[in-house]
Amino acid sequence: MAKKYQVVGIGNALVDVLAPCEDQFLADNGVEKGIMQLIDTARASELYGMMGPAKEVSGGSAANTIAGIAALGDRTAYVGKVKADQLGDIFEHDMRAQGADFEVPRSPADAVDETGRCMVLVTPDSERSLNTYLGVSEHLGPDDIDPAMMADAEWLYLEGYRFDGELSHAAFAKAIAACKGAGGKVSVTLSDPFCVDRHHQAFRDMIRDHIDLLFCNEHEMAAMYPADTLEESIAEAASRVEIVACTVGAKGAYVARGGETVLAPAEASKVMDVTGAGDLFAAGFLHGLVNRRDMMTCGRMGCVAAGEIIGHIGARPEADLGALFKEKGLE
Amino acid sequence: MAKKYQVVGIGNALVDVLAPCEDQFLADNGVEKGIMQLIDTARASELYGMMGPAKEVSGGSAANTIAGIAALGDRTAYVGKVKADQLGDIFEHDMRAQGADFEVPRSPADAVDETGRCMVLVTPDSERSLNTYLGVSEHLGPDDIDPAMMADAEWLYLEGYRFDGELSHAAFAKAIAACKGAGGKVSVTLSDPFCVDRHHQAFRDMIRDHIDLLFCNEHEMAAMYPADTLEESIAEAASRVEIVACTVGAKGAYVARGGETVLAPAEASKVMDVTGAGDLFAAGFLHGLVNRRDMMTCGRMGCVAAGEIIGHIGARPEADLGALFKEKGLE
Repeated sequence: MAKKYQVVGIGNALVDVLAPCEDQFLADNGVEKGIMQLIDTARASELYGMMGPAKEVSGGSAANTIAGIAALGDRTAYVGKVKADQLGDIFEHDMRAQGADFEVPRSPADAVDETGRCMVLVTPDSERSLNTYLGVSEHLGPDDIDPAMMADAEWLYLEGYRFDGELSHAAFAKAIAACKGAGGKVSVTLSDPFCVDRHHQAFRDMIRDHIDLLFCNEHEMAAMYPADTLEESIAEAASRVEIVACTVGAKGAYVARGGETVLAPAEASKVMDVTGAGDLFAAGFLHGLVNRRDMMTCGRMGCVAAGEIIGHIGARPEADLGALFKEKGLE
Repeated sequence: MAKKYQVVGIGNALVDVLAPCEDQFLADNGVEKGIMQLIDTARASELYGMMGPAKEVSGGSAANTIAGIAALGDRTAYVGKVKADQLGDIFEHDMRAQGADFEVPRSPADAVDETGRCMVLVTPDSERSLNTYLGVSEHLGPDDIDPAMMADAEWLYLEGYRFDGELSHAAFAKAIAACKGAGGKVSVTLSDPFCVDRHHQAFRDMIRDHIDLLFCNEHEMAAMYPADTLEESIAEAASRVEIVACTVGAKGAYVARGGETVLAPAEASKVMDVTGAGDLFAAGFLHGLVNRRDMMTCGRMGCVAAGEIIGHIGARPEADLGALFKEKGLE
């Protein structure tokens, strides 16, 4: 019997607060360009006070991936923590409206930590610099994991950012055990090179022991498996997991499986905001995988989905991804 | 001595919740196309549950106008009510970050009515259908009006939608008295033809007794001064106020003053979402007016600002309006 879910994602449930800015703004306000920085409540308030008018769009890395897979019509669920507040309403609405299940009980209205948000500063070169106030999403722990849901998933998709949370290691372990125990497979995204540095051994152990599919970009790959060349790092990763999918920016993505590596070409027509490019690559790739497509097709689907997301502001799909795949002859 | 504010706007403080939808969705869910409908909490919840993933952008008709004027570097303030909740934070941030003053005390976190929101459903023809849950913005009353601020304004800009609120008639009267008593002038926008029908006599009395500049579109004009032709309606309006600015969609806008009427041509390059077109027309027009430009230039500035806003999702400016004016030889 088919499992209820093709992909279940676990990660930081965040609402993105997106605003354009000049490079000088980043320098003036101590924001490191192009990466994710965790910030506390005071810093979040200070930075928000300095930044320009913004738009709010549901975000969160794994949540973006699950939204993309749901938009493609696959059976998905998402696990992440929000509060019973207005941003929590927005996050929950957008996830369910996209067709994904989202059943995690929300922390009550009188809880201290609010729904998390990520201030996304987009510079004129379309690069994004992320400033994340985790809020209640930080507290995702084993109690939030429903083993029955994990057992009913073909694939788990774990967000590397969650390695920053002590309780989440146990949550991931519980989810992996339930999923694998029922014959499911597990994927992880490395999320960020600095996150990899912070938790190198934990990533290494999990990848070696449990991971079937590894998502990353070239910078995260270099942090995870340092080597003289990207090819060597990919080979190193591929000796530990069944599939490696490593995005390489404007060149596209390498996909390695069973001793063979292919390069799927990038598919962006215009670049406005690279927020969510990696998340949507994973969405397209997993869509191909659960529909039994070959590695090159999975990689190309990933690149087309990533190309859609960087063409507009925000990391949730706006165009019909399935129609884009058809245009490209992929479905 | 120059007044502190060139334009002070008063209206419904709302956060827009924008989502694309098909025409069938409007029909299935009893949404009237192209107009504004007031909805209660239960209906807001029901409709939000049915609609697709959305983006949140600060809105509110007069607030959009003030944001546009502030973006052009003029001295502005906005008066409208929000609650001390997350959507209130967003509204306040976006207004101040744009450079407008916003000092109205927020209703406390334990108040029943939340910050208002407007569900904006955008159909494939780029038309928008507005479903407004007013929340706390409905309670804007005389106590929210600071006479010193009104006396320090060259122009007041009043949002016709507020005629739906009993207390707001008294708030408008208080603001007008303070502004005019100090030599200021008063403009109003008719906002919506059905709103005009609901409060026809109140609009008539206010226009006759207090208004110097009337903003409307052709449908609102026909509701306000019914006649066989638009020209006759405009003439009727022009006999009562100093300036009439009436937008006529893709044709542009008629501006009538002192027995002379000019047509400023529309300036849209692409149309994605007409939300806020009228609001930004008023912003461009008032920017021209407070900078002592002739009527044709004011009208053209209005059309350029409206053209910017309909080229993207959301009713707050994204491009540099001043730079657009320069490109068109207007500044």
